[in-house]
Amino acid sequence: MPAMPTWRLTLEYDGTRYSGWQSQTNTGRTIQGQLQAAAAELLGRTSIGGAGRTDAGVHAAAQVAHLRCSVTVRPRDLQYGLNDLLPHDIHVLKAERAAEEFHARHDAISRIYLYQIATRRTAFAKPYVWWIRDRLDAAAMDDAASLLHGRHDFAGFADKRAGGGPTEVVVDRAEVGSSGDLILVRIGASHFLWRMVRKLVAALVEVGTGRLAAEEFASILRSRTRFEPSAPPSGLFLEAVLYEGDAFRRGMTPIIPVVTPRISGREP
Amino acid sequence: MPAMPTWRLTLEYDGTRYSGWQSQTNTGRTIQGQLQAAAAELLGRTSIGGAGRTDAGVHAAAQVAHLRCSVTVRPRDLQYGLNDLLPHDIHVLKAERAAEEFHARHDAISRIYLYQIATRRTAFAKPYVWWIRDRLDAAAMDDAASLLHGRHDFAGFADKRAGGGPTEVVVDRAEVGSSGDLILVRIGASHFLWRMVRKLVAALVEVGTGRLAAEEFASILRSRTRFEPSAPPSGLFLEAVLYEGDAFRRGMTPIIPVVTPRISGREP
Repeated sequence: MPAMPTWRLTLEYDGTRYSGWQSQTNTGRTIQGQLQAAAAELLGRTSIGGAGRTDAGVHAAAQVAHLRCSVTVRPRDLQYGLNDLLPHDIHVLKAERAAEEFHARHDAISRIYLYQIATRRTAFAKPYVWWIRDRLDAAAMDDAASLLHGRHDFAGFADKRAGGGPTEVVVDRAEVGSSGDLILVRIGASHFLWRMVRKLVAALVEVGTGRLAAEEFASILRSRTRFEPSAPPSGLFLEAVLYEGDAFRRGMTPIIPVVTPRISGREP
Repeated sequence: MPAMPTWRLTLEYDGTRYSGWQSQTNTGRTIQGQLQAAAAELLGRTSIGGAGRTDAGVHAAAQVAHLRCSVTVRPRDLQYGLNDLLPHDIHVLKAERAAEEFHARHDAISRIYLYQIATRRTAFAKPYVWWIRDRLDAAAMDDAASLLHGRHDFAGFADKRAGGGPTEVVVDRAEVGSSGDLILVRIGASHFLWRMVRKLVAALVEVGTGRLAAEEFASILRSRTRFEPSAPPSGLFLEAVLYEGDAFRRGMTPIIPVVTPRISGREP
């Protein structure tokens, strides 16, 4: 079999209108499906695989996918060609030639998710936040998040429909910070269990409101008790996927911020 | 007639789904209509007027409206009560008691509009930008914008359906700046002619691409020749309305920015 040229694509998408990156069933419009359709029109037969299987309504600031095709094409022509065919809410940020054996999912060493919690109602950011009316203690949430570092059995934070398989995960990033009217939760790991990030965010919010003490959070984690609540998909972004040699730009800045009014003269 | 308590409301809204603040005809859903309906449900009979008549698809970061009602209500209850009844894309940022004679439109001394031009395609910001594929020279645009300062006859930059009336406007702010993948145009004036901001932005973009020289721009302004192109409503925000004593927070920062990918390891 002749070798197929392989590409590494970096994509951003607004997941609101889609049933996820890769649909669990054959129903619903998916990001991968849209990308495959655009690639087929541009290049003929291709094979595409993504690094992270984002759920319905979950967004990506930098999803990574491999694309294999036998057609020769220049990077800019591939990027622009796909973007001309893709719907407005899916965008190829970058197209680079990769090693032939590059596999977006197998080769990824870390996936980083950012969750946006809004502390006020907002006219613009509803599809990109979870609005919490209660006052949240971000410092208490950050303290609880720090308990997640390292290797733990996250069976209690996996969806019960996730099926069997190992439930140990090594978390390499877990932090909570504030930015304007947002509280941001960032969790990075080599891989994630299904719904794990959204369940952890829901638990951290319980800590933030004071309904759950840090020790109770730790005890749920240790006991592997199923934690049922799950944060809505709207606030969740696949922020980055890291491969050997990648550097992650630090700093807790929002992906889609809440608008700051510009008038400072009359405070109530 | 007994005096009616008067409120000053500051509102943000995403104009995408609306046919403007105040509909020109009786058709279509308007921001003012939604606010009136919410106020009627909360307070009974009210009278509401806005400072700026934003067009269909135009957004506001801080529109100001007066609200007169005979019911006594606390500021927080008014703000929260309206927000509970308003659709998700309209939000009352602030509700303050105002002088009985306060009139949002008549008393405003300056309206400030910000226009967002995206220099790249974006999966998230489409409803909040005008994407221009051509390379734009922001410095040349800023030079041309500086010609707008002061009193001019803007007849050439008014929609031909605007009807009669004076066409002289005193522009007190006109600047163009860059921020990430956005070019921002800010224009402030005591009042505006219909479509004036969007026509000025379209002309400044012509300057930015080099299709229009600064002298030609100046000449169109002087000659009062009708300039037909108009920038799309999506990029336009009513950024602020200023009254006596208000201070405007300076700095050319976007209202809805274009997402910056966080990976810095592999530049193409």
